Parts: sequence; structure tokens; C-alpha cells
Amino acid sequence: MKAVETISWDDDEGAVTFIDQTQLPGHYRLVRCRSVDRLISGIRRLEVRGAPALGVAGAYGVVLASRKIKEKEHSRFMRALWVEAARIRGARPTAVNLSTGVDFVMRAVEDAHSVSAARADSLHAARLFASADARACRELGTHGASLIRGRTAVLTHCNAGALACSEWGTALGVVRSAVEAGAEVQVFACETRPLLQGARLTAWELQRDGIPVTVIPDSSAAFLMKRGEVDIVIVGADRITTDAVFNKIGTYMHAVSARFHGIPFYVAAPLSTFDPGRSGGDVTIEERDRKEVASCGGAVTVPEGVDVRNYAFDLTPHELVTAFITDIGVIEPPVDWEKIETARRAGGM
Amino acid sequence: MKAVETISWDDDEGAVTFIDQTQLPGHYRLVRCRSVDRLISGIRRLEVRGAPALGVAGAYGVVLASRKIKEKEHSRFMRALWVEAARIRGARPTAVNLSTGVDFVMRAVEDAHSVSAARADSLHAARLFASADARACRELGTHGASLIRGRTAVLTHCNAGALACSEWGTALGVVRSAVEAGAEVQVFACETRPLLQGARLTAWELQRDGIPVTVIPDSSAAFLMKRGEVDIVIVGADRITTDAVFNKIGTYMHAVSARFHGIPFYVAAPLSTFDPGRSGGDVTIEERDRKEVASCGGAVTVPEGVDVRNYAFDLTPHELVTAFITDIGVIEPPVDWEKIETARRAGGM
Repeated sequence: MKAVETISWDDDEGAVTFIDQTQLPGHYRLVRCRSVDRLISGIRRLEVRGAPALGVAGAYGVVLASRKIKEKEHSRFMRALWVEAARIRGARPTAVNLSTGVDFVMRAVEDAHSVSAARADSLHAARLFASADARACRELGTHGASLIRGRTAVLTHCNAGALACSEWGTALGVVRSAVEAGAEVQVFACETRPLLQGARLTAWELQRDGIPVTVIPDSSAAFLMKRGEVDIVIVGADRITTDAVFNKIGTYMHAVSARFHGIPFYVAAPLSTFDPGRSGGDVTIEERDRKEVASCGGAVTVPEGVDVRNYAFDLTPHELVTAFITDIGVIEPPVDWEKIETARRAGGM
Repeated sequence: MKAVETISWDDDEGAVTFIDQTQLPGHYRLVRCRSVDRLISGIRRLEVRGAPALGVAGAYGVVLASRKIKEKEHSRFMRALWVEAARIRGARPTAVNLSTGVDFVMRAVEDAHSVSAARADSLHAARLFASADARACRELGTHGASLIRGRTAVLTHCNAGALACSEWGTALGVVRSAVEAGAEVQVFACETRPLLQGARLTAWELQRDGIPVTVIPDSSAAFLMKRGEVDIVIVGADRITTDAVFNKIGTYMHAVSARFHGIPFYVAAPLSTFDPGRSGGDVTIEERDRKEVASCGGAVTVPEGVDVRNYAFDLTPHELVTAFITDIGVIEPPVDWEKIETARRAGGM
């Protein structure tokens, strides 16, 4: 399987470059962001999305900002860079990785004594962060693959694949690693309303890799579980706090259904997604524009004037999680946060 | 509240007339079916849908067939009518009401001794069936309203409203009756993928009646339950067998979530929806065209060549149902089938 390169830094162009995920599966289009504003709007519009990919976008975003700031005096330059870093960090509130990526690079440039050193250090750090993400996905894939033997039907939600990371994927990274290790995996991809990342992106990725995939409406997952057609559920995560998993709206419903039917429910996420300092109540759940639900492919699907509730994420308590599949191994709750923190520190997070 | 007349017989035109529900909420268009073929295609395309409305469509369908058959000899006429009745009955497999409506009218014409008497009797019977449906919805509404007091948030799925019946509605009939009785009801309408009957139809009906309604993606229902925002769930039904409720795909998921959160889960359905002779395993669950899931408003949402599973219905065991709201009262499981059968016979079913 050849990995998709979802997001990268193009040094010739001085641009953060990514696949426009709003256009898939119809069009494969690369976006080159040459300004921080363009990057932020790309993040808000979900041209680039998925927690680990947002981390990399945050990291390269700092590189981009460092090239764009015209201040020649070092301390003024750094003040301006902090302002830009805060703007990038604030582009979306729920996924922790965006902050993790920004902060990783900002810590690396703190020690630089000149503008040019800061610019060079930021690129070095961002590349390190991106390759650490890619490596983490491969490692969690290997750990997760040990949970999948023989013929297995995996249900997943949204897209926690190569397109959500710099490559390979989290939930789909586990699937890929299992297939490489010889398992026969069939994936049920929940379409994931309202923006259909499961139907559009997960299906696209898996078809490209020749892994059998069937798209289903989100609401039929529980029924397939009842019919005995689902062996395990694997989802990604946007943030894992001390008590809860934040992930795409619908994740909680799958966790409840999996528990009801006695089906294992796994969350695949690198350490960069863990947020040791926070509990669920401290995190803002992004509510997005009404029109994402109220129209589809140009057609109006909700009468004008009718209210819509459009949470981008929900929150699943750790008690409903069978285990977390991470780059340092498969971890059953209750999570040993000391171990997580030590490993995060070792990775410079 | 002024009821919508979803389906009727236009005697001047010799046509079954209904609102084209595929065009709502954008366009309000009446369809006049002057042939059985046109009616069957309208049923298959879901121009008219909803279990009770399908019953009325079946009843008027026999009237239409009786006008179209040119045979003058009575026994030949009746043979041709039986053929047409079987075709109408077979238009969709899951909702029992379609058969109930057809059979009700066929039984009424069996005793006629001439073609003209059969034609007259069919119209008489069909009108009786339609008005019985309307009355049943009003009655079940009144029974159900007793379950809703003060400020109540009701979650519903698909459209079990006036548009699913000849008027008033089942699940939404209960809401309407409760509002008339003074309750303050807020409805969460699950959008209901893939064809969005909740977003398009339930929202349209309730907005028209001035009842507050909020549309949500199907996958967020469990999360709203967890947040404590849902007081009760009320859905309709396409067929109630001795062990299970067949209703729009997603119903089972809501039943599981409601049970998990300790929220009452009601099924509102007239006696015509009960099928005393059958258990869940005997009923065909309609699987519909891939393209309902794979495209939306003209946009392709699933890559070409990727499989789709598109069940139109699922099956919820009676154990997950708090009670059935029927025209003869609120019935907790286990269902007393003798009582149901006696009442159905009294209604000529």
C-alpha cells in the first residue's frame, strides 16, 4: 500500500500544501497555502481535517507565518510570531492536535537568537513533528493489528485514515497494518453526516488500497451490529481528556450500540491526541453552520426558518472504550496518565 | 391546526391524488395518478410514503383499478381486479398497511354481483378505510397526549406525521394532540438518511403548525439524550409483528440509545399496522437503490464502485418498546394479541 501524502511543506513555493478534502471523491485537487489567512480558512472549511493532520497543519502553519512576518528585529519578530501562532491555534477549538503542533514548533523556535535561525528551526521542528506523526501511526497500526485476526468486519466512523493524518491513518492505520499482516478485513464506513467524510474519504482511501469497504448510513450501524455483521468498532479521536474521548458526532452513538451488543469499541490515536490536563467539561464542542445540515449537493433539505443543531463532535466516556490503540501500545481504561505524560515528554510534546 | 390532506380520491378526474413528498420542502406539488402503473411508480419512488398513507393508497388503488379495467363480464372483471390488487400490494414489501388497505377494499367488493356494483362498493370501502385511518390517528393522538405533560422534548425519526397518513399523523399526531391539550412540546426531528424525510417532511409539517422543531443529524440523537435534552422518543411503525417493530432504518438505534439512557421509547401506530400473523423473521426488509446513499442533491458522495448497504427499515424487538400508542389505548408489551385481533376484526380488518 502506498500512503497518501495528505499535507506537506513545499519549500520552493513557501507554501503549506494539502489535498482539498472537500472536493473528494469527485476531484483530486492540491491546495497551496501561501498565507496564514488562507491556511486558517482551509482549516475552517475542512479542506484539511482530521486531528493528526491538523497537528501537522499547525506545525507547518508556524513555518509559513515565520516566512511571512517581515520584522527584521528578533524580539519583534517573535512577538508577531506568537500572535500568528495564537490565530492558527484558534482556527478550530475541539481537536487538541492543532495546538500540539503549533506549540511543538513554537517551543523549538524559542531558543533561536535570530530571525533566520527561528525560520530554520521552525521548519526543522515541523518536519520532525510530521515525521513523528507518520511514525506514530505506523506504530499504533502495528499494535492495533494484533487485535485483528482472520476474517474481521470493522465498523468505523468519519475518516480516521491517511487523509486525517500526514499518512497511513489511525483507525484505518490499524486496518492497513492488519491487512499487511494477513488479516481479511471488511470495513463498514459510516457515511458520517453532515459532511460525509466516511462516504467520501474513508471509502476513497480504502478503495485506492484495495481493502473491501461498504458505505452505510450512520443510523444503520446498530442494526448491522444486531445482525451480527460487525466484529469490532475502531474510531479515531480529536482529543482524549482524562474522562472522555472527543470525536466526530456519532461516535458516542456507536459506543453505546457496541456496548449494548457486546462488541469491542476501540479508539485509535497517537499520544499527540491525549490531553492530560483537561476533563471533558473544559473542552468547547464546535457547533458548525446550519447550512451543512440544511443543504446537500445544492439541494435545500431543511425548510427555511427551521432550527438545526449541528455539533461537529461528541464526547464518549472512557467507560465505553474497550481500549485505546496508541503508538506506545494498547491501553485499557483506566488510563495510566503518568505513563502517557512521560511518553509525551520523551516525544517533545 | 389544520390538517394536511396527504392523499385522496378525486372522483371528477378518476384519479388518486397526493402531495409529491419527494419535492418537499422546496415545492408543493399534487400528483394525480390516473393509472395503476403510475400509482405503483409513485409508491416505489416514495412520492407517497408512510405506513397509514400507503394503506389509503392501496385502498384507492383498487378503486382506480376498478375504473380502468374494461372487462364487462363480472367474473372476468373480478379476476382482473385481483391481478391489479396483487400488483399494488407488491409495490413495497415492508409496510403491512399497503396490503391492509388493498385487502379491506377487496373484501368489500367480493360480495358485489355486478361490475358497476363492485366499482361503487370499492369507492365506498376505500373512503371508509381512509376516514377510519384519520379517526384512528386522532384517537391514538388523544391516548398518547396523556403521556406528555408540561414542557416536553420529543425526539422522533423519519416522518410519522400527517404526510405519512391521510391526515394528523401517528407520532406527530400524538405531538399535535398534546399541543392541543396544552403541553409545550419541542420536537427534535432526526433528519433520517438517506432520503431525509425528517428534515424535509417532519420539519415542514411542524413549522406549518407552529410547533417548535429542531432538525438534527441522526447520529447526534444519542448525544442529545446523554446531555439530558430528550424527554421521550416517539416513532411510527410500518409493521408490528408479534415480536418486532419494523420502521425506518435508524429506529432500532434510537431504541437502544433510549434504553441506555433510561428514556421512554414509544411506538405510535393504528391497529392497521399490527400484523398478528407474523414474526419478524417472516418479513422482507426492503433494500433500496445504492444511489439514494451514494448521491445527494446531484453531488456524488460515494466513490464509484464502492459498495453501499441501503436498508429502508430495521427491526426493533418489543422488549425495547416502553409502550405502543394505538387507537384503542396505550399498550405495554407483552402485547395482548387477542385483544388486538378482536379490535381489528371489529374494524373490518
